[in-house]
Amino acid sequence: MAFWGVEIKPGKPYTHQYDDMRGRLHISQATLGTGSSTDKSLLQCNVGDKSPVLLCSLLPDKTESCPLSLEFEEDDDVVFSVVGPRSIHLTGFYLGVVQDFGGDD
Amino acid sequence: MAFWGVEIKPGKPYTHQYDDMRGRLHISQATLGTGSSTDKSLLQCNVGDKSPVLLCSLLPDKTESCPLSLEFEEDDDVVFSVVGPRSIHLTGFYLGVVQDFGGDD
Amino acid sequence: MAFWGVEIKPGKPYTHQYDDMRGRLHISQATLGTGSSTDKSLLQCNVGDKSPVLLCSLLPDKTESCPLSLEFEEDDDVVFSVVGPRSIHLTGFYLGVVQDFGGDD
Amino acid sequence: MAFWGVEIKPGKPYTHQYDDMRGRLHISQATLGTGSSTDKSLLQCNVGDKSPVLLCSLLPDKTESCPLSLEFEEDDDVVFSVVGPRSIHLTGFYLGVVQDFGGDD
Amino acid sequence: MAFWGVEIKPGKPYTHQYDDMRGRLHISQATLGTGSSTDKSLLQCNVGDKSPVLLCSLLPDKTESCPLSLEFEEDDDVVFSVVGPRSIHLTGFYLGVVQDFGGDD
Repeated sequence: MAFWGVEIKPGKPYTHQYDDMRGRLHISQATLGTGSSTDKSLLQCNVGDKSPVLLCSLLPDKTESCPLSLEFEEDDDVVFSVVGPRSIHLTGFYLGVVQDFGGDD
Repeated sequence: MAFWGVEIKPGKPYTHQYDDMRGRLHISQATLGTGSSTDKSLLQCNVGDKSPVLLCSLLPDKTESCPLSLEFEEDDDVVFSVVGPRSIHLTGFYLGVVQDFGGDD
Repeated sequence: MAFWGVEIKPGKPYTHQYDDMRGRLHISQATLGTGSSTDKSLLQCNVGDKSPVLLCSLLPDKTESCPLSLEFEEDDDVVFSVVGPRSIHLTGFYLGVVQDFGGDD
Repeated sequence: MAFWGVEIKPGKPYTHQYDDMRGRLHISQATLGTGSSTDKSLLQCNVGDKSPVLLCSLLPDKTESCPLSLEFEEDDDVVFSVVGPRSIHLTGFYLGVVQDFGGDD
Repeated sequence: MAFWGVEIKPGKPYTHQYDDMRGRLHISQATLGTGSSTDKSLLQCNVGDKSPVLLCSLLPDKTESCPLSLEFEEDDDVVFSVVGPRSIHLTGFYLGVVQDFGGDD
């Protein structure tokens, strides 16, 4: 099993938790969900107690998809949320358990 | 043999099945097919009985190609379909059989 | 030697043949050639006797470059052609001979 | 731990220093922060005493996200700064300590 | 040391030469330099005595950054030049010496 996909809806943050069986998650793409609002929707990410960061900005009828190439392998919760009116579909795949040569986790 | 390409037509979902001989499939690109409609076409993906997710949104005369970087290695069927009036060409390549260090499949 | 680049001209398809010495070809990028036509140019790919697929769509003065990330390692001829008025420059690099764990080629 | 993210604010350069425990940093994406200015914001990078280079250009309401795919593993300080009115959110992940076959560092 | 960046100015081609110590160069991104011209700027590449190819096309106020994903490991000189009025900033990183299983170089 490799593929991973979720729809993040406005007002309903999604929490990703590390799963020993599946390993590191690679997120490849964000795509704007269907809807009529023409305001932009931003994808925000909160990891543990760090400051939130924006991952992408989707503009209706201009840029509705955005490649991401992010990887998550955190002990902390990773919370994705939408800032804006429309849902954002996130897709990617599990890389499996990646051997890590670093020593800080 | 590495290259993989299909045209997904509106109303005709395409089912990808895992093939032991070819291994994990990497999908690299989606491109809008020819046609006169100026409405957008979305690429949707259904894996097994999970909720469908959108992979990309193609806008005629604005954004007609979209990089994807997705990988599929599912026991379940993977069904690609178009939401919209024009076909979507998907291209990518087989990665071969990837050794998986995870333990959930 | 790693870099690979060709200009595909309208009406002059280009055939790529696998070369044992160079191995798998990674194509990274398509860019619209110079010219005055404002009609779009599509890049089409034919592999052996399979149906042709579109790899990207380039729109003058809007989207003149497109990342591709495709890999070719076919025994069959791979024919690239332009559908439209302007040439398309393809660039990428050889990956060398990639060990393939699959068993179908 | 893999994910890395920072917000670079105008007038407040951010310095990234190599950390033996985390290894090589892959930066994947730049996204324009919220704000009302419609002027573009550029991301600039200074490494040691080399000439500064621009990493991307973000255009409000046109191109608010940009994939980057850059890697940093410098002994020298790497300073990111914004040229323009709005902040830029940078995201990526640590690759861990990458074995380097070169001999110049 | 991994990061690599140069500014290619109009009328001043830049020559990249392979360096045994640093190995294969991965170029990730092109970004339009500052300036007031609204004409597009193309990035051209000449390798040895092969025909020049275009790597990307940057359009002021529309598409000012372009992901590239190209790799260079040539014995021949690689010459980058700008066709157009504004400079282009190229960034990437050294991959180190990559073991090559092919036999032609």
